[in-house]
Amino acid sequence: MEQVVKHIVLAKFKEEVTEAEIQKLISDYADLRNHIKQIKSFEWGKDVSIENLNQGFTHIFETTFETLEDRSAYVTDPAHVKFGSELLPALEKVVGIDYVPTREP
Amino acid sequence: MEQVVKHIVLAKFKEEVTEAEIQKLISDYADLRNHIKQIKSFEWGKDVSIENLNQGFTHIFETTFETLEDRSAYVTDPAHVKFGSELLPALEKVVGIDYVPTREP
Repeated sequence: MEQVVKHIVLAKFKEEVTEAEIQKLISDYADLRNHIKQIKSFEWGKDVSIENLNQGFTHIFETTFETLEDRSAYVTDPAHVKFGSELLPALEKVVGIDYVPTREP
Repeated sequence: MEQVVKHIVLAKFKEEVTEAEIQKLISDYADLRNHIKQIKSFEWGKDVSIENLNQGFTHIFETTFETLEDRSAYVTDPAHVKFGSELLPALEKVVGIDYVPTREP
């Protein structure tokens, strides 16, 4: 399996954030791939779980990188820092977590 | 992009759970793919994030399915139910969330 680094963000938006504002933030999130060359892919989706374990999180974002170094460059990239300063104040809850996936137990 | 359903579990194990017990749970989690035919892939990894947003979660598990129906069959499959009854008591915190990833903002 090709090595990859996955950066997962789970978000719950504040109640006062409108659908239009959420859509703008998602567009801006996706647009980072046009500004930060280390981004290998970006995907997102809304929670559709049925196990009652979502803990209130409603949106999932996955950004992938080829290496941990690329992930670190992304974190400190001014475009990401600027976007973070727009996204985080809109969130009631957030988890950001990175991992190098393996299929081996 | 081929459609897929991603089932993400974030876990923080209780302090008293040993590394050997964690490894056994991860092996049992991975082994579900040998018992539940709807599982398309299973990957996991430990948190390596650097943004201080992991909220204490240390392990990430990603199971993928081809359809929401396959995801639902997995959730109710006896092998998954049995595994859940082993995993959940070992966790201090858990998030389980599903989404159909898209690249379009």
